Amino acid sequence: MSHDEDTRELANQLVHGNRRALSRAITLVESSRSDHRDRAAKLLDIVLPRTGTAVRLGISGPPGAGKSTFIQALGLHLLQRHDEQVAVLAIDPTSTQSGGSILGDKTRMPLLASHERAFIRPTPTGTSLGGVARRTRETLLLCEAAGFNYVIVETVGVGQSETAVAGIVDTMALLLPPAAGDDLQGIKRGVMELADIVVATKGDGALLPSARAAASDARLGLALLRRRHPGWDPRVILVSAHAGEGIDAVLDAVLAHRDHLVEYDQLAPLRQQQDLGWLMAEITDGLVAAFRADPGANEAVAQARRDVLDRTTTTVAAARAILSSYLPAQRD
Amino acid sequence: MSHDEDTRELANQLVHGNRRALSRAITLVESSRSDHRDRAAKLLDIVLPRTGTAVRLGISGPPGAGKSTFIQALGLHLLQRHDEQVAVLAIDPTSTQSGGSILGDKTRMPLLASHERAFIRPTPTGTSLGGVARRTRETLLLCEAAGFNYVIVETVGVGQSETAVAGIVDTMALLLPPAAGDDLQGIKRGVMELADIVVATKGDGALLPSARAAASDARLGLALLRRRHPGWDPRVILVSAHAGEGIDAVLDAVLAHRDHLVEYDQLAPLRQQQDLGWLMAEITDGLVAAFRADPGANEAVAQARRDVLDRTTTTVAAARAILSSYLPAQRD
Repeated sequence: MSHDEDTRELANQLVHGNRRALSRAITLVESSRSDHRDRAAKLLDIVLPRTGTAVRLGISGPPGAGKSTFIQALGLHLLQRHDEQVAVLAIDPTSTQSGGSILGDKTRMPLLASHERAFIRPTPTGTSLGGVARRTRETLLLCEAAGFNYVIVETVGVGQSETAVAGIVDTMALLLPPAAGDDLQGIKRGVMELADIVVATKGDGALLPSARAAASDARLGLALLRRRHPGWDPRVILVSAHAGEGIDAVLDAVLAHRDHLVEYDQLAPLRQQQDLGWLMAEITDGLVAAFRADPGANEAVAQARRDVLDRTTTTVAAARAILSSYLPAQRD
Repeated sequence: MSHDEDTRELANQLVHGNRRALSRAITLVESSRSDHRDRAAKLLDIVLPRTGTAVRLGISGPPGAGKSTFIQALGLHLLQRHDEQVAVLAIDPTSTQSGGSILGDKTRMPLLASHERAFIRPTPTGTSLGGVARRTRETLLLCEAAGFNYVIVETVGVGQSETAVAGIVDTMALLLPPAAGDDLQGIKRGVMELADIVVATKGDGALLPSARAAASDARLGLALLRRRHPGWDPRVILVSAHAGEGIDAVLDAVLAHRDHLVEYDQLAPLRQQQDLGWLMAEITDGLVAAFRADPGANEAVAQARRDVLDRTTTTVAAARAILSSYLPAQRD
């Protein structure tokens, strides 16, 4: 079978919900091999008409916010009460350093992982956060094509990854652990600005008062920050994943936010804007990757970094010298 | 005189404080002509040892915060009380759309503009915020070489430009107008996170209670956000530029912040990190500029944008197709 026929057959199996086909497709998307990327691009083109249908939900929050527990509770709620198909993807910026990640590990969400209508995929590895995020976005498209109508993209709350996730999903939920006095300012950071929904977690037992305090602090914080989507007032919801309380309210909020985007004609423009952003990011990264793959350019950059740190040259002169030897056409 | 000799002569005049030389040098830096950029790079290399000496202060704040009035008051304070030399530069992100800007217009700061030891330069024009910011950074280096020991970089508080300025300066001051009820949340946005110093403006007369409220809100907001520089607690200062009150406290805070950076060995690493960021940004932009200057690539991108919006192709396939014809070496 030719590669093209094989890709078409894979796409066919994928859109019929074949899990092995989905896994093989994701492997292509995550590969850095040029022939794999070619096939992934072809595959995405074939399944394009089947994408765009899922509720795309991003989940962020600091370590200790209870993301795994919450996602499992929300996922099971969707599976059991609403008969949905749920995929969980992850973006872990630290995977660019470590070359791998425990995030998305199926053992974190055992009940969800063992459910036949759930699909959990760990974070892809990659050399840059942008690359990791782009592969996660492509995996989201594959999951949609495979029939998943809820795709949850999880991130670690440490800075840039929330922004990357916000470029993939329609709705962002920020999870906050119970407020713990002085820790509060370290927990929230600027990511609250991206939140369409804030979930105060662990709202049960001895932690209930602190969880209520976190919710109250969140309302205060939200009032100081700008809105991601005009006209949508972020909802703050207290949940107890263990007691199963508040999960339905979160789902209501997710659907209400999506309805809001549709009603005010914001969903299609949001996704178009995301798409154009990815197109230019993909091109720019391709240009930089080709530059970085050039041995001469590579060596010149290493030398320039030393020279700039030593203050023997400026960044301007260094960059121009590197570019003019890399791009001979620019010499004029 | 050869270009090289001319550039050396220009550098010589510049470091002796010749204003016309400074203006000519900035014109070279701001030019998009390739030969001008070559000379600018050469010039910056020559004057490099004379740079790095100024207090580099960024000023952001929403329209109506009184930035011009404050900068003029701070500038005059530095000129009259401390005998300093003060340069004021501006970054206006809207200049990338309009091709020009009224920001930095000398008529906004008449007393400062007419002072012999002050230098006011409007925002450069450019095709991207990154380009505008880079030219402003290069102008800052020229001002340092020309003997200015305070360089104030002003920005409009509308989103991305504060981040660009934070990549240029050592210390960021955010100006907040008197709190006006519901307007507050629109005013502050996420930029407060970048602030080392918050200045509550117009703290006099009938507005004094509202200015105090803005200062109090700022303290609240800062407690929720992360720090730009570890160990530095942002100061919140109430000022009245008209009454001349609080200006000295702001200057104290600027110098205290700089001392903090020096004492905790954060200044050199901050500037090195900024430099390396500019080096890669300069290279990346050069690669993208060369790509954009390619007529075939240009046309292909325009078509790809249409196809992606029509959903007849994915961003992945479109980007790969464009890159593989632009970078023939990548075809393997």
